[in-house]
Amino acid sequence: MSTTSISQLVEEAIVEFQASHKEARPRELYEPIRYILGLGGKRLRPQLALMGASLFGVDSRKALPAAVAVEVFHNFTLMHDDIMDNAPLRRAQPTVHEKWNANIAILSGDAMLVQAYQVLFQLPPDVMPPVLELFSKTAIEVCEGQQLDMNFEQRGQVSIAEYLHMIGLKTAVLLGCSLQMGAIVAGAAKEDARALYDFGKYLGIAFQLQDDLLDVYGDPETFGKQVGGDILSNKKTFLILKALEIANRYQKEELEHWFSEQPSDGNAKVEAVRAIFDFLNIRELTQRQIETFSEKALERLRSIPVAATDRKPLEDLAGLLMVRKR
Amino acid sequence: MSTTSISQLVEEAIVEFQASHKEARPRELYEPIRYILGLGGKRLRPQLALMGASLFGVDSRKALPAAVAVEVFHNFTLMHDDIMDNAPLRRAQPTVHEKWNANIAILSGDAMLVQAYQVLFQLPPDVMPPVLELFSKTAIEVCEGQQLDMNFEQRGQVSIAEYLHMIGLKTAVLLGCSLQMGAIVAGAAKEDARALYDFGKYLGIAFQLQDDLLDVYGDPETFGKQVGGDILSNKKTFLILKALEIANRYQKEELEHWFSEQPSDGNAKVEAVRAIFDFLNIRELTQRQIETFSEKALERLRSIPVAATDRKPLEDLAGLLMVRKR
Repeated sequence: MSTTSISQLVEEAIVEFQASHKEARPRELYEPIRYILGLGGKRLRPQLALMGASLFGVDSRKALPAAVAVEVFHNFTLMHDDIMDNAPLRRAQPTVHEKWNANIAILSGDAMLVQAYQVLFQLPPDVMPPVLELFSKTAIEVCEGQQLDMNFEQRGQVSIAEYLHMIGLKTAVLLGCSLQMGAIVAGAAKEDARALYDFGKYLGIAFQLQDDLLDVYGDPETFGKQVGGDILSNKKTFLILKALEIANRYQKEELEHWFSEQPSDGNAKVEAVRAIFDFLNIRELTQRQIETFSEKALERLRSIPVAATDRKPLEDLAGLLMVRKR
Repeated sequence: MSTTSISQLVEEAIVEFQASHKEARPRELYEPIRYILGLGGKRLRPQLALMGASLFGVDSRKALPAAVAVEVFHNFTLMHDDIMDNAPLRRAQPTVHEKWNANIAILSGDAMLVQAYQVLFQLPPDVMPPVLELFSKTAIEVCEGQQLDMNFEQRGQVSIAEYLHMIGLKTAVLLGCSLQMGAIVAGAAKEDARALYDFGKYLGIAFQLQDDLLDVYGDPETFGKQVGGDILSNKKTFLILKALEIANRYQKEELEHWFSEQPSDGNAKVEAVRAIFDFLNIRELTQRQIETFSEKALERLRSIPVAATDRKPLEDLAGLLMVRKR
């Protein structure tokens, strides 16, 4: 099945999910759910769930409950993260706590987490227990990752290893989980389902590092967000942590100076930090790290004993994610 | 099995649950969970889960996962409700968002909701699907109830019927759910499990009305909280809604006057409102309403074909809850 029809299947299933509680009351609880799911996005996780099933020769429709559940869960985390990050915008639209209020965003998010489970209950009984266990373990890890991310904001020093651990939990495990849920639904052997999970997790780390890279070196024409946004908000990304790791005393002082204040001229800050990054070769170093994780991912994918043609859609997707411009 | 040993079983199981993630990291995520569960409380819901199982002659230990799950879920709702209500204290101790911060309270609560599911996965596979479905349906209803409660705060008029519907969702369905989970674990017939749910739901409504009543007419010596607290915070309880329903034009104006402001002399406000309540016989009218729901509850309990001696612990508990002083 082609990626196009997989994305169609996902879109239809999400529209159907939204329609299923269109009449539900109170509206203040359910409208934010339809709103955030309606903001779109890449729908990467549900597509991975379907692709995880079709990799093992099973009709990807069988994984639709897993696909919808993971997208509902992902949007629940966005709704709550946006409160915690005080974010005004999500996909260029007002966040739920801005459009309504924080209490509604807390409560609608809570309801979405329960709804994600309810969707999973539609799976056949024989695959449901391992899917529920994997999903729950992953959900807890995503919470741990978000907590670590908040901790790191308050902390002076964060090592590269700690950062990779954090994005592994906050972002990558859910990609692995999506794929493995598809594999479980398809009745794949345990070690193959686990290899597919690893593929997704490594890909997820590469994906987040690519995000970090695009924020600084993305093309303003195609990036969709403000280039340099992470630098302006003093976010500890891979690039700055790597720079701090290898900088000499003077460069380190300059970086710490820029990251300790909110200057009136944001452009000057972005330019100055980028100049140090350039000097330290941070772009290439990040790209090399991304390639390392992509390679690890593909290695795990290729360990799965299926025909090369069956693996191709996932290989292609991995390639696409790495050359993306936004 | 006596209520004493049931409460021991519950306490031990909750201590064990807390110990199970004692070493888990990051601590900022897990400490608030151990903290809120350590604040105590009546542990009514987990006891109901065990009593629901033993009513049908089954060892109540079989329902321990359901018991722990419902207590973890209940405390998750308290953690999030306290943020929404801006409450500084819970059981005379600082609330989680006060002791840590709102972000931590959001995230720890999210993790608790997932943990509640994880505990349910310990149930035998044959009873797990109906328990999971009931639990999830109830969890959504509790969210709906909380949203309605917040809506009512913003609204001028709320009818008695709307109020009873709201407390039914926010408070009572979880009591019904606790009992029914126990019944399902015990393999009870569907209609008996449902009758037990109804017993719990009616009891829960009576329980909440009793709460409303105690707030105004409780004995300051034994109540444990400030008598008149609901009046001072302009909370729309059964008592005020009933008073507004039957008051004449002048009494209504006086009530609305008191409820439209935050007077410097709180005692004067409580005294004035209580004087109108007394004149309108609100205490007796509320007691009558409580008795109506208690009677409905006991009727449903007595419809279950078990020996009268087996029903006795639940009848006694219902009686105890209705004569409580706090």
